[in-house]
Order: sequence, then C-alpha cells, then structure tokens
Amino acid sequence: MVNTIEMNQLDHLFNPRSICFVGATTDPMKIGSAIVKNLSKLLDSSLKIYFVAKKLKELHGSPVYSSILEIKAEIDLVLIMVPSKYVEQVIDECISIRVKGIIIMSAGFGELTKEGKIIEQRIVNKCNNVGIRVVGPNCVGLQNTQIDLNASFIQHPPKGNVGMVSQSGSLAAACIWKWRAQGIGCSKMINLGNASDIKIPEIVQYFQTDDETDVITVYMESIKNGREFVRILQKTTKTKPVLVLKGGRNPTGLTAAQSHTGSISTNYDILKAALTQAGGISCISLGEFNTGVKTFAHLPVPKGEKIGVITASGGGGVLYCDFLEDFNLKLSTFSETLKSQISEVVIPLVRLINPLDIIASADETNFYETTKILLQSSEIDIVVICSLVPPHQPGEPQSHMRGVLNAWDETGRQKPVIPIMINAENFSEISNLSHEGKMPIYYSPKAAAYATSLLIKRKNYLKKVM
Amino acid sequence: MVNTIEMNQLDHLFNPRSICFVGATTDPMKIGSAIVKNLSKLLDSSLKIYFVAKKLKELHGSPVYSSILEIKAEIDLVLIMVPSKYVEQVIDECISIRVKGIIIMSAGFGELTKEGKIIEQRIVNKCNNVGIRVVGPNCVGLQNTQIDLNASFIQHPPKGNVGMVSQSGSLAAACIWKWRAQGIGCSKMINLGNASDIKIPEIVQYFQTDDETDVITVYMESIKNGREFVRILQKTTKTKPVLVLKGGRNPTGLTAAQSHTGSISTNYDILKAALTQAGGISCISLGEFNTGVKTFAHLPVPKGEKIGVITASGGGGVLYCDFLEDFNLKLSTFSETLKSQISEVVIPLVRLINPLDIIASADETNFYETTKILLQSSEIDIVVICSLVPPHQPGEPQSHMRGVLNAWDETGRQKPVIPIMINAENFSEISNLSHEGKMPIYYSPKAAAYATSLLIKRKNYLKKVM
Repeated sequence: MVNTIEMNQLDHLFNPRSICFVGATTDPMKIGSAIVKNLSKLLDSSLKIYFVAKKLKELHGSPVYSSILEIKAEIDLVLIMVPSKYVEQVIDECISIRVKGIIIMSAGFGELTKEGKIIEQRIVNKCNNVGIRVVGPNCVGLQNTQIDLNASFIQHPPKGNVGMVSQSGSLAAACIWKWRAQGIGCSKMINLGNASDIKIPEIVQYFQTDDETDVITVYMESIKNGREFVRILQKTTKTKPVLVLKGGRNPTGLTAAQSHTGSISTNYDILKAALTQAGGISCISLGEFNTGVKTFAHLPVPKGEKIGVITASGGGGVLYCDFLEDFNLKLSTFSETLKSQISEVVIPLVRLINPLDIIASADETNFYETTKILLQSSEIDIVVICSLVPPHQPGEPQSHMRGVLNAWDETGRQKPVIPIMINAENFSEISNLSHEGKMPIYYSPKAAAYATSLLIKRKNYLKKVM
Repeated sequence: MVNTIEMNQLDHLFNPRSICFVGATTDPMKIGSAIVKNLSKLLDSSLKIYFVAKKLKELHGSPVYSSILEIKAEIDLVLIMVPSKYVEQVIDECISIRVKGIIIMSAGFGELTKEGKIIEQRIVNKCNNVGIRVVGPNCVGLQNTQIDLNASFIQHPPKGNVGMVSQSGSLAAACIWKWRAQGIGCSKMINLGNASDIKIPEIVQYFQTDDETDVITVYMESIKNGREFVRILQKTTKTKPVLVLKGGRNPTGLTAAQSHTGSISTNYDILKAALTQAGGISCISLGEFNTGVKTFAHLPVPKGEKIGVITASGGGGVLYCDFLEDFNLKLSTFSETLKSQISEVVIPLVRLINPLDIIASADETNFYETTKILLQSSEIDIVVICSLVPPHQPGEPQSHMRGVLNAWDETGRQKPVIPIMINAENFSEISNLSHEGKMPIYYSPKAAAYATSLLIKRKNYLKKVM
C-alpha cells in the first residue's frame, strides 16, 4: 500500500537537498564520467554535491572523498556506480550514516545470476528496515528538470510536461531524443532497472500529484503487484493520461526481458484488459508510444468525434481514411453551409466533400483558410490536415504547416489539430516548426489515425468516469 | 493482354528522343513552371525539348511555340498541363501529327465528375485507335534517372535500383524524399493518376525487363484486371521483389480513393490473398512499404532463418523479440563454440545468450567485433543489431553503426544485417552513414522485425518457385 510517508520518501529522490556520487571517475569511456558531468552542473546551485572515489583528490574544484563516511554532512540521495561486488559495502556505509534514498546504478545483480538476485534482495531489505528506499540496481538514474537535476548518465531532457518511469534506461534516453524534436520535454524521468524496491505503481502515483506532470508514460517489463497498479491507475487516469508500453508481451520477448531486468512472466492479454479498463493506454510499439506522447503533450481532448480532413495528397488522405476505419471511426459529412464556406477559399477543381482534397497545388494560404474554417465550424471536433513537403513550389518545406499553425493559434487551440507531413521526418524545418510552435506533426497517415483514436478514446473515458 | 508491341510503346514514354510540353509557364506558383524547370535541365542533351504556351516567346533560350502543330519535327512524348477544358483540343492536335505517347497531367476528369469520366474515356479511345498510349489524366508524370529524364513536376530522385509505379503522385514524391535519406534512389518512377489507359500491370511487366530496376514498388488504389496483374506478378516475383501498398482497403478509404483517382471497389482481402500467392508483398502502411524498400534495395536474401541479435539497449532487444514472435519467428540458440568466441570480445557482465545484451557501455569496437563474429558464424543467417544514439559517451552518434558497417563490409555483405537505431530518425549523422554506406538503418524494433520477416518470406518464396 502506498501511503503519504512513502510519497515523502520519493521526494527525497526527486527533490534532494544533497547528493553524493560513489564511483566518480574522469575516464571519458566510463559511464561514471557522464554522471560526474551531469552532477557538476549543479555545483554552483543550492544543492550540495559530493563525490566519492578511491583515486581522485579533486573534481571540478570540489574535494573528492575516499568514502562516504568521510563526508560530515547530511546526505539525502546517494548514487552508486561501483563494480557490483563492492556495492553492499557502500550500502552498509550509507545505512550507518542514515542517508534518505539510494540509486544503485551498477549492474550485475538479479538480471545476471540467481546469487545476484539474493544479494539484491538482501541489500533492499537492509535499507528498507531503516526506512531507506532504493532505486535499481542496474539503472541509469533519475531526472527532475524543474530543479535542473540530472542524477543519471544519460542526456538532460528539455523541460516539459511528460513524466516518465521506465524499466529500460536506454529506451528512456531514446525517447527523450525523439520527443525533443517535437518540442516535448520531461518533467521527471526515472529508470527503475531491476525495480527491486521502488516499483512502477508508486512512481505513477507520485506523478499524479506532481504539478509539473500532465502526461504520464511507463515502459514496463514486469509487474509484481498488478492489482495495486490498476487501483492507482484508476485514480490517476481521471486527471492525467497514462501511456503504458509493455516489453515482453510474448515468450521470446519475455525471455529477453528476464535477462534484461530479471522480469517475471505476466499474461499480457489479461494485463492489457485490466490497464484499459482502468483508463490506461496500452501501447505495443515505440511508434504508438511516441505518437501518444506527442498527442497528449500538445493537444486538447476533443468535445466530440466529428472528424474533418483536409488533404493535398490524395493518396495520403485515402490511407488516413483506411486506418481511421481500422479504429472503427468514420468521417462526418459536410453540411451545405460548411460546403458553401469552403467553396469561397478553394479552386473549382476541389470537390466539396470530406476528405477535402485541396490538391497538390495548395499553398500556405489554402491550408490556413481551410483549416480555420473547419476549426471554427460547430460541425467539426477534430481537424486532420494531410500534406507533404511541397515537391514543386518555391515555398519552404514548412509553409503548409505554418498555415495550419496560424489557423490553430488564431482559434485559441480549442480543438485538436492533427497535421500529417508524409515521410518528412528528417526535414529539420518541419521539426523546428513543431518544436517552436508546440504543435505535433505526424509523419504517416497511420500515426495520425492512431492519434485520432487516442483522443476519442480519452474523451469517451473522461465522459464515463466524470 | 500485354505484348511486345506495347512494351515498345512504354519505351517511347521512358526513353523518348523528343518531348513537347504543352502548358509552359514562368509563374513560380504554377505547377507548369516546375515542369519547365525539370525539362530545362535536358536542353543541352541529345533529347529534344519543345515548349508550347500561348503567352511566351522564349524559355531558357529555346523558342516557345503557340501550338504543337507549329513544331515541324517528330515528337515522341507530349506532356499536357492545360486547364481540362482545353485538353481534348491538344489531344486532337497530337493525334494529327502522330506523336507516340502522351501524359495528361491536368486534373478535372473522371476523379471530379461523371462527365469528366466520359471525356477521359473518349480521349483515350481516340488515342488508342491510332496507337498512341496515354498516361493519366490527373498525374505528376514520369522519371527515368538513367537518362536524367524528369518529365514531372516533382523533384528528381537520386539514381538507384527501385522502380516505382504509383496512382498517387504526392505519395511518390514523399517516398522519394524518404528513400533518399537512406541512400536509396529510383531507376524509374511513373504516376498513373486516373490510369485511364496505361495501368499498373503493364508497368510492373516493363520494370521486370528493366536492367536498372531490382526492386519494384506499387502504390495502387484500384485494379481493373486483377487476374492480369496476378499473372504478371507471378512471373515478375521470380526475379524481383514486388511491394504493393494498397489505398482504399476499407469503405472510408475507398470513398476517398473514388474522389482521388476515380477508383472502383475491390475486395481487399481477396486481392491481398492473390497478390501474396503470386509472391507479391502486400503492405498496408507507408511504414511497411518504406521498410520493405530499404530492406530489398540494400540487403541480400538470407540462406536460412537463424536470427542472431546483438543489443546495447535491453528494452530495445526485448521489443524486437516481441515483434519477431508476432511474425511467428524465433531466435536461434548459440552453441558452446559460438559462446566461447563471443566471450573473448565482451565484458564479464554480458550473458552469453541470444539476444546478446552487450549493455549500454558498449562502444564501436564492441559492435564491430560481436557483429563480425555472428556474420562469420555458420550458425547465423541474419544479424540484427539494436542500439541507440550513445547517450553518455564522447563518441559520435553514428559510431555504433560504423562498427556494424565495417563488420558487414569485411564479411563481403554476404548475409543481411538489420541495424536498429531506436528513435534516431532525425540524426543526420546516422542517415549520412546509411546513405554513404548503402546500409539500411531501422528506427524501431517493430520495423526491424518486419524487415526480418520480409527477408525470410522472400527466401521461402524463392525456394518454393525455383
């Protein structure tokens, strides 16, 4: 049972007043050097940083201690990155001086051998007995962008509204790169690795109460107390969307997960049904996961499910409609009033139907005007705009999307827009526009249809539980 | 029935000795100006280029004719981009001087109104009666990179081994951008638009005999003679892979397709079964289509289906295995001999199993050595390598993949490698390495598993029919 005391314990991890890193090094090829680099940025802040290493005397102008016992100050959070055989000794020292939280980054425990599993559990028990909580082992650490804290060996994410808890540190790092290109940042990120003490449900609950977090994302390989997770999810999803990507759905994946984080078997179908019932969004691929993140990080939940489509790519519009139907969704029919409004801004070659194919010669103004008409119409709840990098015109690659962005801004961002730029993922101009404009851009009709389905699912869920 | 005479007729389109463009303009906002620009690059070549326009006297130093009738020379190919109401008159002139092939780019025919459909058919009948073949209407044109011919209003693709026939010009343009980033180019591209005369099967057959084309790609919305297509496919797939993306699988998509290219209804499930039976690869999304293209454009077909996985991202490896099982594929087990070879190049923290998790600290040398061992092992037919942009090390983003590329090169590219760089699609360094190294890079575990399944499917098909 997660209680208030435990929530405070998590605060020691995400909002520590002092941090000690045991295992500091200057060797650029060692992971520890990345942790030193990330922590050093806080040396001039009010947060106290201490380094422990056997062979160093000084780091970035700070003294280096040969043991945590030498530091005569209160320590909230300890990061440990020493070979696994030395970890227990460091833990004993941490216990003796009553630190508040510990992150064991070192690998070589439960994910490697049975003996490692026993040691891992012994360490956690020791810590828990005196009220110390443990993250890991076998993890990259945590981040809190609100206080510029990067207690990890991965890159610092930009500030944003997405909270992430992941059992894979590398996937967390890769997602941060991906989201960054869409103008999306993290509030907090934590990688639990083997999750021997602190587990996913507690973090989700913590994120629910966190004002900086609007969207909660979970990468998970195993879940030990499914009921607890579902109970927390039920509460959390009433105010925040929770996206869950599960690794180890199938036996082959599960075998890999066992060696990755020592995961145990879970029936995916049962888990998925329970998560969905509790309002969680179950993703099976990184594509779905990242699409979900950009959708909820940037777009409002629609009021209805009347979808209007504008397209300058006939084929793109067709593919979007195909996928929409895969999600059991359909397009609405334009009324005569709406048709007449549209007819004033398009050329006669354009058929006044939904999807509205404004054909390949459409320019920024055409996109701006048609998008604005649909956004302003009471007949439409969600506007989907399908385009591609202008293949023939002198315009810049991002010009179509700028038209869409302006229409969205001028209508107060009240309704979700789902702009598709087919196959344009490596155009920096488009990614920059998305980044600066805080507007998601989807790179395939399928991703856009998936986003549409998520928004409608969320609307329906909120209607049901509110 | 497609016969030799018709094949020669297609050669007039792809390898014309003279081209006339009716509808030339200098207005940069008009599509015609892009056609002028693309054709102008051939003004100094042995290919004769003629421009027809009412209001111009000269273009790029060439005289502009007010009618095609004024040109007193033999014309192989005519491109028409004038408002639809003037098209039939131009066609009559083309017939009177017996041109060899015509591309009607103008829109406003069968895709717009019933009357348009009638006119479209009348025009085609007229032309066919005197042996002239027609592409379009409502299309972007065609390209043949072998002779630097870009008879279209979209960008020129780089030279390469992929032939594309598409009913959507914009999708073709978008695919060209996408493929370019992976070092993939086109041999020939043709957009058929409403496909009122020349249809997909003929083009596929033409590509089969084309020495420049190794991989055939099709975007199709409708098929009028399915049996003919299947017959041609059966023959073609024995020597070249054929990827088919079908728009209008579902009623909603089909309705959109009707207004896009005047498509008629097709039962997708029946079509898909027939295509698959004939060795074609049926894709439902652009993601699958583009993944298929990069796979067959760059990788050899494997000799068996023993898959070996190396990963520096535990989570990435887990997700790859999950998707592999979705395709009913499994990993092979490493023998003691192979384990002992691997143990010599990895750190003790690495468990000697498949997937081989060489953990987050792995560097270029680790990737190079482990990839080379698997590529050289008789136990492995396909090597999958999962990584992500190094999040902590001082190395360049592409360093892991350079290790893989070197191992692949040194083993003579005999076996397929499937390198995954999770979520790194907008890293230009990685795309450059793929481009220059002619090695595909996959950006998600799902895409990599799909590629694995395609290679194995192709191997099995070739075994069956050979």
